[in-house]
Amino acid sequence: MADKVGLIHIYTGDGKGKTTAALGQAVRAAGRGFNCIIIQFMKGKTEGGETTTLSAVPNIAIERLGRNFIGPNAADIETVKESLLPAMSAARAAVGGEYDLVVLDEAVTAASLGVIDMDDLLRIIESRDASVELILTGRGADQRLIDAADLVTEMKQIKHPFDQGRRARAGIEF
Amino acid sequence: MADKVGLIHIYTGDGKGKTTAALGQAVRAAGRGFNCIIIQFMKGKTEGGETTTLSAVPNIAIERLGRNFIGPNAADIETVKESLLPAMSAARAAVGGEYDLVVLDEAVTAASLGVIDMDDLLRIIESRDASVELILTGRGADQRLIDAADLVTEMKQIKHPFDQGRRARAGIEF
Repeated sequence: MADKVGLIHIYTGDGKGKTTAALGQAVRAAGRGFNCIIIQFMKGKTEGGETTTLSAVPNIAIERLGRNFIGPNAADIETVKESLLPAMSAARAAVGGEYDLVVLDEAVTAASLGVIDMDDLLRIIESRDASVELILTGRGADQRLIDAADLVTEMKQIKHPFDQGRRARAGIEF
Repeated sequence: MADKVGLIHIYTGDGKGKTTAALGQAVRAAGRGFNCIIIQFMKGKTEGGETTTLSAVPNIAIERLGRNFIGPNAADIETVKESLLPAMSAARAAVGGEYDLVVLDEAVTAASLGVIDMDDLLRIIESRDASVELILTGRGADQRLIDAADLVTEMKQIKHPFDQGRRARAGIEF
Protein backbone atom coordinates (compact mmCIF):
# COMPACT_ATOMS: atom_id res chain seq x y z
CA MET A 1 0.00 0.00 0.00
CA ALA A 2 2.90 2.27 -0.84
CA ASP A 3 0.85 4.82 -2.81
CA LYS A 4 -1.69 5.22 -0.03
CA VAL A 5 -2.04 8.55 1.80
CA GLY A 6 -3.08 8.05 5.40
CA LEU A 7 -5.32 10.49 7.23
CA ILE A 8 -5.46 11.55 10.86
CA HIS A 9 -8.64 10.83 12.81
CA ILE A 10 -9.54 12.17 16.23
CA TYR A 11 -12.39 10.74 18.29
CA THR A 12 -13.01 13.02 21.25
CA GLY A 13 -15.84 14.21 23.52
CA ASP A 14 -17.47 13.04 26.74
CA GLY A 15 -19.63 10.28 25.27
CA LYS A 16 -19.08 6.53 25.06
CA GLY A 17 -17.73 5.20 21.77
CA LYS A 18 -14.27 6.73 21.30
CA THR A 19 -12.09 3.70 22.04
CA THR A 20 -14.61 1.28 20.57
CA ALA A 21 -14.72 3.30 17.32
CA ALA A 22 -10.93 3.06 17.06
CA LEU A 23 -11.05 -0.69 17.76
CA GLY A 24 -13.76 -1.14 15.13
CA GLN A 25 -11.74 0.88 12.64
CA ALA A 26 -8.76 -1.42 13.16
CA VAL A 27 -11.00 -4.47 12.73
CA ARG A 28 -12.36 -3.10 9.44
CA ALA A 29 -8.91 -2.11 8.15
CA ALA A 30 -7.36 -5.46 9.11
CA GLY A 31 -10.00 -7.15 6.96
CA ARG A 32 -8.66 -5.21 3.97
CA GLY A 33 -5.10 -6.29 4.70
CA PHE A 34 -3.94 -3.26 6.69
CA ASN A 35 -1.26 -4.01 9.24
CA CYS A 36 -2.60 -2.39 12.44
CA ILE A 37 -1.30 -1.55 15.89
CA ILE A 38 -3.31 -0.27 18.84
CA ILE A 39 -1.34 1.39 21.61
CA GLN A 40 -3.51 1.97 24.68
CA PHE A 41 -2.37 4.81 26.93
CA MET A 42 -3.63 5.16 30.48
CA LYS A 43 -5.94 2.16 30.49
CA GLY A 44 -4.15 0.73 33.54
CA LYS A 45 -2.78 -2.76 34.00
CA THR A 46 -5.98 -4.76 33.80
CA GLU A 47 -6.40 -6.13 30.30
CA GLY A 48 -9.49 -5.08 28.43
CA GLY A 49 -11.91 -7.47 26.76
CA GLU A 50 -10.54 -6.17 23.46
CA THR A 51 -7.05 -7.46 24.25
CA THR A 52 -8.30 -11.04 24.47
CA THR A 53 -10.20 -10.85 21.18
CA LEU A 54 -7.65 -8.91 19.16
CA SER A 55 -4.62 -10.91 20.30
CA ALA A 56 -6.02 -13.71 18.14
CA VAL A 57 -6.57 -11.52 15.07
CA PRO A 58 -3.81 -11.53 12.46
CA ASN A 59 -2.83 -8.01 11.29
CA ILE A 60 -3.68 -6.39 14.65
CA ALA A 61 -1.18 -5.86 17.44
CA ILE A 62 -2.44 -4.44 20.72
CA GLU A 63 -0.30 -3.06 23.53
CA ARG A 64 -1.37 -1.53 26.83
CA LEU A 65 1.27 0.81 28.21
CA GLY A 66 1.16 3.27 31.07
CA ARG A 67 -0.56 3.59 34.41
CA ASN A 68 -3.82 5.29 35.16
CA PHE A 69 -4.57 7.73 37.96
CA ILE A 70 -8.21 7.08 38.17
CA GLY A 71 -9.83 3.84 39.28
CA PRO A 72 -8.85 1.25 41.87
CA ASN A 73 -5.17 1.03 40.88
CA ALA A 74 -4.54 4.75 40.61
CA ALA A 75 -0.98 6.03 40.67
CA ASP A 76 0.27 9.52 41.44
CA ILE A 77 0.79 11.92 38.58
CA GLU A 78 4.60 11.64 38.36
CA THR A 79 4.35 7.84 38.27
CA VAL A 80 1.75 8.11 35.51
CA LYS A 81 3.95 10.51 33.51
CA GLU A 82 6.93 8.19 33.77
CA SER A 83 4.84 5.15 32.90
CA LEU A 84 3.70 6.82 29.67
CA LEU A 85 7.21 7.33 28.28
CA PRO A 86 7.25 3.78 26.81
CA ALA A 87 3.84 4.47 25.23
CA MET A 88 5.26 7.56 23.53
CA SER A 89 8.33 5.62 22.33
CA ALA A 90 6.08 2.89 20.97
CA ALA A 91 3.93 5.52 19.22
CA ARG A 92 6.99 7.18 17.69
CA ALA A 93 8.22 3.84 16.32
CA ALA A 94 4.77 2.74 15.14
CA VAL A 95 4.18 5.68 12.79
CA GLY A 96 7.41 5.08 10.85
CA GLY A 97 5.80 3.00 8.12
CA GLU A 98 5.81 -0.54 9.51
CA TYR A 99 2.07 -0.26 10.18
CA ASP A 100 -0.68 0.96 7.85
CA LEU A 101 -2.97 1.97 10.70
CA VAL A 102 -1.90 3.16 14.15
CA VAL A 103 -4.29 3.81 17.05
CA LEU A 104 -3.07 5.93 19.97
CA ASP A 105 -5.94 5.17 22.33
CA GLU A 106 -6.45 7.77 25.10
CA ALA A 107 -3.44 9.76 23.89
CA VAL A 108 -5.75 12.80 23.60
CA THR A 109 -6.82 12.37 27.23
CA ALA A 110 -3.21 11.99 28.32
CA ALA A 111 -2.20 15.15 26.47
CA SER A 112 -5.15 17.13 27.80
CA LEU A 113 -4.29 16.06 31.36
CA GLY A 114 -0.64 16.95 30.81
CA VAL A 115 0.71 13.46 31.55
CA ILE A 116 2.22 13.33 28.08
CA ASP A 117 3.71 16.34 26.38
CA MET A 118 1.44 17.93 23.78
CA ASP A 119 4.38 19.11 21.68
CA ASP A 120 5.81 15.58 21.68
CA LEU A 121 2.46 14.23 20.53
CA LEU A 122 2.25 16.83 17.75
CA ARG A 123 5.80 15.91 16.70
CA ILE A 124 4.80 12.24 16.45
CA ILE A 125 1.87 13.23 14.22
CA GLU A 126 4.08 15.39 12.01
CA SER A 127 6.84 12.81 11.78
CA ARG A 128 4.61 9.96 10.63
CA ASP A 129 5.15 8.23 7.31
CA ALA A 130 2.66 9.71 4.83
CA SER A 131 1.06 6.30 4.28
CA VAL A 132 0.01 5.85 7.90
CA GLU A 133 -3.65 6.17 8.93
CA LEU A 134 -3.36 7.56 12.45
CA ILE A 135 -6.20 7.49 14.96
CA LEU A 136 -6.14 9.31 18.29
CA THR A 137 -8.81 9.03 20.94
CA GLY A 138 -9.67 10.69 24.21
CA ARG A 139 -11.39 13.56 25.92
CA GLY A 140 -10.47 17.20 25.65
CA ALA A 141 -8.84 17.48 22.21
CA ASP A 142 -6.73 20.61 22.05
CA GLN A 143 -7.30 22.93 19.07
CA ARG A 144 -3.79 22.14 17.82
CA LEU A 145 -4.73 18.45 17.59
CA ILE A 146 -7.97 19.31 15.78
CA ASP A 147 -6.05 21.50 13.35
CA ALA A 148 -3.60 18.67 12.67
CA ALA A 149 -6.40 16.16 11.96
CA ASP A 150 -8.28 15.41 8.75
CA LEU A 151 -11.30 13.83 10.44
CA VAL A 152 -12.67 14.79 13.86
CA THR A 153 -15.76 13.33 15.50
CA GLU A 154 -17.03 14.53 18.85
CA MET A 155 -18.73 11.72 20.75
CA LYS A 156 -21.38 13.74 22.54
CA GLN A 157 -23.07 12.21 25.54
CA ILE A 158 -26.83 12.47 25.20
CA LYS A 159 -27.71 9.85 27.81
CA HIS A 160 -25.49 7.62 29.94
CA PRO A 161 -26.33 4.88 32.45
CA PHE A 162 -23.63 6.13 34.86
CA ASP A 163 -25.96 9.11 35.37
CA GLN A 164 -28.45 6.62 36.76
CA GLY A 165 -25.86 5.30 39.20
CA ARG A 166 -24.82 2.24 37.20
CA ARG A 167 -21.22 1.08 37.39
CA ALA A 168 -18.78 0.21 34.64
CA ARG A 169 -19.28 -3.37 33.47
CA ALA A 170 -16.75 -5.89 32.14
CA GLY A 171 -17.33 -6.47 28.44
CA ILE A 172 -19.01 -3.10 28.01
CA GLU A 173 -16.78 -0.40 29.48
CA PHE A 174 -13.56 -2.42 29.68
CA MET B 1 -24.63 -14.59 32.40
CA ALA B 2 -28.24 -15.24 33.43
CA ASP B 3 -28.35 -12.54 36.14
CA LYS B 4 -27.04 -9.87 33.79
CA VAL B 5 -29.26 -6.95 32.83
CA GLY B 6 -28.52 -5.72 29.33
CA LEU B 7 -28.78 -2.08 28.36
CA ILE B 8 -29.75 -0.40 25.11
CA HIS B 9 -27.16 1.76 23.36
CA ILE B 10 -27.76 4.11 20.45
CA TYR B 11 -24.93 5.58 18.39
CA THR B 12 -26.35 8.28 16.13
CA GLY B 13 -25.36 11.60 14.51
CA ASP B 14 -23.69 12.67 11.29
CA GLY B 15 -20.08 11.92 12.26
CA LYS B 16 -17.89 8.93 11.51
CA GLY B 17 -17.63 6.30 14.24
CA LYS B 18 -21.10 4.84 14.74
CA THR B 19 -20.67 1.45 13.08
CA THR B 20 -17.05 1.19 14.16
CA ALA B 21 -18.05 1.87 17.81
CA ALA B 22 -20.57 -0.96 17.62
CA LEU B 23 -17.97 -3.28 16.07
CA GLY B 24 -15.46 -2.36 18.76
CA GLN B 25 -18.04 -2.95 21.48
CA ALA B 26 -18.66 -6.45 20.14
CA VAL B 27 -14.90 -7.10 20.04
CA ARG B 28 -14.57 -6.00 23.68
CA ALA B 29 -17.59 -8.01 24.83
CA ALA B 30 -16.48 -11.15 22.96
CA GLY B 31 -13.22 -11.00 24.89
CA ARG B 32 -15.25 -11.28 28.11
CA GLY B 33 -17.13 -14.31 26.81
CA PHE B 34 -20.23 -12.55 25.50
CA ASN B 35 -21.90 -14.31 22.59
CA CYS B 36 -22.36 -11.53 20.01
CA ILE B 37 -24.20 -11.03 16.75
CA ILE B 38 -23.94 -8.08 14.39
CA ILE B 39 -26.76 -7.64 11.89
CA GLN B 40 -25.90 -5.03 9.29
CA PHE B 41 -28.90 -3.33 7.68
CA MET B 42 -28.57 -1.38 4.43
CA LYS B 43 -24.84 -1.85 3.96
CA GLY B 44 -25.44 -3.34 0.51
CA LYS B 45 -24.07 -6.56 -0.90
CA THR B 46 -20.37 -5.79 -0.84
CA GLU B 47 -18.78 -7.27 2.25
CA GLY B 48 -17.09 -4.85 4.59
CA GLY B 49 -13.55 -5.21 5.87
CA GLU B 50 -15.13 -6.04 9.24
CA THR B 51 -16.80 -9.14 7.81
CA THR B 52 -13.46 -10.68 6.88
CA THR B 53 -11.90 -10.03 10.28
CA LEU B 54 -14.88 -10.92 12.46
CA SER B 55 -15.78 -14.11 10.58
CA ALA B 56 -12.66 -15.59 12.14
CA VAL B 57 -13.46 -14.42 15.70
CA PRO B 58 -15.19 -16.94 17.94
CA ASN B 59 -18.22 -15.49 19.80
CA ILE B 60 -19.04 -13.00 17.03
CA ALA B 61 -21.47 -13.69 14.21
CA ILE B 62 -21.86 -11.08 11.49
CA GLU B 63 -24.62 -10.95 8.89
CA ARG B 64 -25.21 -8.38 6.17
CA LEU B 65 -28.86 -8.26 5.14
CA GLY B 66 -30.76 -5.82 2.98
CA ARG B 67 -30.08 -3.64 -0.03
CA ASN B 68 -28.97 -0.04 -0.02
CA PHE B 69 -30.36 2.80 -2.06
CA ILE B 70 -27.32 4.91 -2.11
CA GLY B 71 -24.05 4.03 -3.78
CA PRO B 72 -23.21 2.23 -7.02
CA ASN B 73 -25.61 -0.69 -6.45
CA ALA B 74 -28.59 1.39 -5.35
CA ALA B 75 -32.03 -0.20 -5.45
CA ASP B 76 -35.44 1.52 -5.49
CA ILE B 77 -37.19 2.13 -2.20
CA GLU B 78 -39.70 -0.73 -2.43
CA THR B 79 -36.90 -3.18 -3.22
CA VAL B 80 -34.95 -1.87 -0.23
CA LYS B 81 -37.98 -2.21 2.05
CA GLU B 82 -38.57 -5.79 0.96
CA SER B 83 -34.87 -6.65 1.27
CA LEU B 84 -34.89 -5.49 4.90
CA LEU B 85 -37.63 -7.88 6.05
CA PRO B 86 -35.08 -10.69 6.60
CA ALA B 87 -32.94 -8.25 8.64
CA MET B 88 -35.93 -7.51 10.87
CA SER B 89 -36.69 -11.23 11.27
CA ALA B 90 -33.05 -11.88 12.15
CA ALA B 91 -33.15 -9.01 14.68
CA ARG B 92 -36.34 -10.34 16.26
CA ALA B 93 -34.81 -13.80 16.67
CA ALA B 94 -31.44 -12.47 17.88
CA VAL B 95 -32.82 -10.60 20.91
CA GLY B 96 -34.53 -13.68 22.33
CA GLY B 97 -31.69 -14.65 24.64
CA GLU B 98 -29.38 -16.75 22.46
CA TYR B 99 -26.97 -13.82 22.23
CA ASP B 100 -25.61 -11.64 25.04
CA LEU B 101 -24.93 -8.70 22.74
CA VAL B 102 -26.84 -7.81 19.59
CA VAL B 103 -25.86 -5.03 17.18
CA LEU B 104 -28.48 -3.73 14.73
CA ASP B 105 -26.13 -1.70 12.56
CA GLU B 106 -27.81 1.08 10.53
CA ALA B 107 -31.23 0.09 11.88
CA VAL B 108 -31.64 3.68 13.11
CA THR B 109 -30.92 4.99 9.60
CA ALA B 110 -33.36 2.50 8.10
CA ALA B 111 -36.09 3.53 10.55
CA SER B 112 -35.46 7.24 10.02
CA LEU B 113 -35.68 6.76 6.24
CA GLY B 114 -38.88 4.73 6.62
CA VAL B 115 -37.51 1.59 4.95
CA ILE B 116 -38.17 -0.38 8.13
CA ASP B 117 -41.16 0.25 10.35
CA MET B 118 -40.36 2.29 13.46
CA ASP B 119 -43.08 0.57 15.48
CA ASP B 120 -41.69 -2.84 14.51
CA LEU B 121 -38.23 -1.72 15.63
CA LEU B 122 -39.60 -0.46 18.96
CA ARG B 123 -41.40 -3.79 19.41
CA ILE B 124 -38.13 -5.66 18.87
CA ILE B 125 -36.50 -3.50 21.54
CA GLU B 126 -39.37 -4.05 23.98
CA SER B 127 -39.55 -7.79 23.33
CA ARG B 128 -35.88 -8.48 23.98
CA ASP B 129 -34.74 -10.82 26.71
CA ALA B 130 -33.72 -8.65 29.71
CA SER B 131 -30.16 -10.02 29.60
CA VAL B 132 -29.45 -8.75 26.08
CA GLU B 133 -27.15 -5.77 25.52
CA LEU B 134 -28.67 -4.20 22.42
CA ILE B 135 -26.82 -1.69 20.23
CA LEU B 136 -28.44 0.30 17.45
CA THR B 137 -26.58 2.59 15.08
CA GLY B 138 -27.44 5.09 12.39
CA ARG B 139 -28.33 8.65 11.59
CA GLY B 140 -31.49 10.43 12.62
CA ALA B 141 -32.52 8.68 15.85
CA ASP B 142 -36.18 9.33 16.55
CA GLN B 143 -37.08 10.61 20.03
CA ARG B 144 -38.93 7.35 20.72
CA LEU B 145 -35.68 5.42 20.16
CA ILE B 146 -33.77 7.80 22.42
CA ASP B 147 -36.43 7.40 25.11
CA ALA B 148 -36.16 3.61 24.86
CA ALA B 149 -32.35 3.66 25.21
CA ASP B 150 -30.16 3.69 28.32
CA LEU B 151 -27.09 5.10 26.60
CA VAL B 152 -27.09 7.49 23.67
CA THR B 153 -24.03 9.02 22.04
CA GLU B 154 -24.27 11.51 19.21
CA MET B 155 -21.30 11.22 16.87
CA LYS B 156 -20.97 14.84 15.89
CA GLN B 157 -18.98 15.67 12.78
CA ILE B 158 -16.43 18.37 13.53
CA LYS B 159 -14.24 17.80 10.48
CA HIS B 160 -14.52 15.23 7.68
CA PRO B 161 -12.27 14.55 4.68
CA PHE B 162 -15.31 14.13 2.38
CA ASP B 163 -15.75 17.88 2.85
CA GLN B 164 -12.37 18.21 1.15
CA GLY B 165 -13.55 16.11 -1.79
CA ARG B 166 -12.00 12.83 -0.68
CA ARG B 167 -13.79 9.58 -1.49
CA ALA B 168 -14.69 6.66 0.75
CA ARG B 169 -11.75 4.26 1.06
CA ALA B 170 -11.70 0.47 1.50
CA GLY B 171 -10.52 -0.39 4.99
CA ILE B 172 -11.59 2.98 6.38
CA GLU B 173 -15.20 3.65 5.39
CA PHE B 174 -16.14 0.09 4.41
